[in-house]
Amino acid sequence: MINLPSYDDVATAAERIKGYAHKTPVVTSRTVDEEFGAQVFFKCENLQRMGAFKFRGAFNALSKFSPEQRKAGVVAFSSGNHAQAIALSAKLLGIPAMIVMPHDAPAAKVAATQGYGGSVVIYDRYKEDREQIGRDLAEAHGLTLIPPYDHPDVLCGQGTAAKELFDEVGPLDALFVPLGGGGLLSGCALATRALSSNCGLYGVEPEAGNDGQRSFHAGSIVHIDTPKTIADGAQTQHLGKLTFPIILRDVNDILTASDAELIDCMKFLASRMKLVVEPTGCLGFAAARQMKAELKGKRIGVLVSGGNVDMARFASLLVR
Amino acid sequence: MINLPSYDDVATAAERIKGYAHKTPVVTSRTVDEEFGAQVFFKCENLQRMGAFKFRGAFNALSKFSPEQRKAGVVAFSSGNHAQAIALSAKLLGIPAMIVMPHDAPAAKVAATQGYGGSVVIYDRYKEDREQIGRDLAEAHGLTLIPPYDHPDVLCGQGTAAKELFDEVGPLDALFVPLGGGGLLSGCALATRALSSNCGLYGVEPEAGNDGQRSFHAGSIVHIDTPKTIADGAQTQHLGKLTFPIILRDVNDILTASDAELIDCMKFLASRMKLVVEPTGCLGFAAARQMKAELKGKRIGVLVSGGNVDMARFASLLVR
Repeated sequence: MINLPSYDDVATAAERIKGYAHKTPVVTSRTVDEEFGAQVFFKCENLQRMGAFKFRGAFNALSKFSPEQRKAGVVAFSSGNHAQAIALSAKLLGIPAMIVMPHDAPAAKVAATQGYGGSVVIYDRYKEDREQIGRDLAEAHGLTLIPPYDHPDVLCGQGTAAKELFDEVGPLDALFVPLGGGGLLSGCALATRALSSNCGLYGVEPEAGNDGQRSFHAGSIVHIDTPKTIADGAQTQHLGKLTFPIILRDVNDILTASDAELIDCMKFLASRMKLVVEPTGCLGFAAARQMKAELKGKRIGVLVSGGNVDMARFASLLVR
Repeated sequence: MINLPSYDDVATAAERIKGYAHKTPVVTSRTVDEEFGAQVFFKCENLQRMGAFKFRGAFNALSKFSPEQRKAGVVAFSSGNHAQAIALSAKLLGIPAMIVMPHDAPAAKVAATQGYGGSVVIYDRYKEDREQIGRDLAEAHGLTLIPPYDHPDVLCGQGTAAKELFDEVGPLDALFVPLGGGGLLSGCALATRALSSNCGLYGVEPEAGNDGQRSFHAGSIVHIDTPKTIADGAQTQHLGKLTFPIILRDVNDILTASDAELIDCMKFLASRMKLVVEPTGCLGFAAARQMKAELKGKRIGVLVSGGNVDMARFASLLVR
């Protein structure tokens, strides 16, 4: 039997990260509201410290370390944003950090992780098992492993993003949240059921990697090969042992968006809303757009999860 | 003798635009704070309606029209953002709008102006006098001319941006504001002297068009040819009869930034702060960076004036 975290743990996490994480802005666009015939609130986690919501969970987890854990250090594996979040949180808390990153992680993310003082260990995303590498490093050096999503302190930290949104704008009719391993979605689910109980809550995956959708409908965790999608923050192969049961219990449905839809949304967010959003960060907006006929007259939240995209890549996508 | 507006007019403008203009976010960056050894607050007018502070002044001016003026309509001349601001404000208030725009105005700005329902009249920036064209149209059709900066209701509207910044973060030691014709700077000057009297206030121009700096030091308005700079929102040829005396009285100095510095700042704001900012909008940040040695330990405001840049141009500048 698994002991699932509750909304109280999200509320405690919010206290713990206060003054360290940004309370990110909620922005609106009349153009979007007119397109939808609805009120749409964008929670801008691309404007979070280090450019993504991941800072919330990482800082929450590391701030609970014992003196012994702090001294020995932390190890993390991540396609990018979690790595930076652990490296930055560790730096702020004076904890040594070792980060396992895939060989094809965006250069900007590798550089940023190193810039925060993290030691980077590279592995082959398509051949090696990052979780095993992380566990081996943890054992060899006495480090504490903080996984990118399947950890109570991580997912509760992520859930503070939805808590802030509801605290600022009140209850919503629907909320769209990007889905990779489910840390953000499960944390937001705890906040949603506590603060806006009737809100339709939707996780959104890249079309090429819909393991979450299949798991949700099958009722058990489906594993897939690493999907090929521009949404590099959602290239996870499966949901987690903690995140899945929360998602199954509290989420209304899992939707998908194609790479082409993500690029359209990215262009719109840049040209009309003046926001730099990474492809993964566009998942929620893309799915809300698909459903807009059903959302008329409603109050809708879109969680913009991050903005860490290589500038050369961003520029090339903008003119595609 | 000229009757100059006062801070009370800025405060009244703030009431007038409430619920129509966005209260834009103030964002911070630890990376910038570490670079400066100071606290830097960015007031994000790129996240304002239609993507620039200009909406504030335009809406303030149009909302004061008499029923007769509303019926006849408004005419405006502008390099872009003022045009969109007038077109959008006119649409919201049900006023017909005619906009005089230069032949080389960014395509995105022309399209957006037309999208808001404004009739666009094109002129040659290097050969024709837009002010004369505007006056002729006003006379022929009984329209009210709202100039882009040299008008009390316009400049007082723009000043609400600084009022909001001080209301949110308290008094500052220095504030950097982009300078074209001086509408934003003079309005912000009224707010600054009322709300943060000891704050060093700096207007910032493109290096290629430093008429404001020369005017400030000469004590009288200097006219220049249309400057060639990427900062298309600050290609003005001279300060205004209203904006200049306020600037002379209330501003500490006028600084300049090169196109290369603007591009560097634009890249930084996109890659690290996830904000799309047009070249003109980077003027304040560029000048603050030049002065950072003198700003250590201070509380600094940077007014980010707008984000209306053609996406193809933005993409090409990002990879330059």
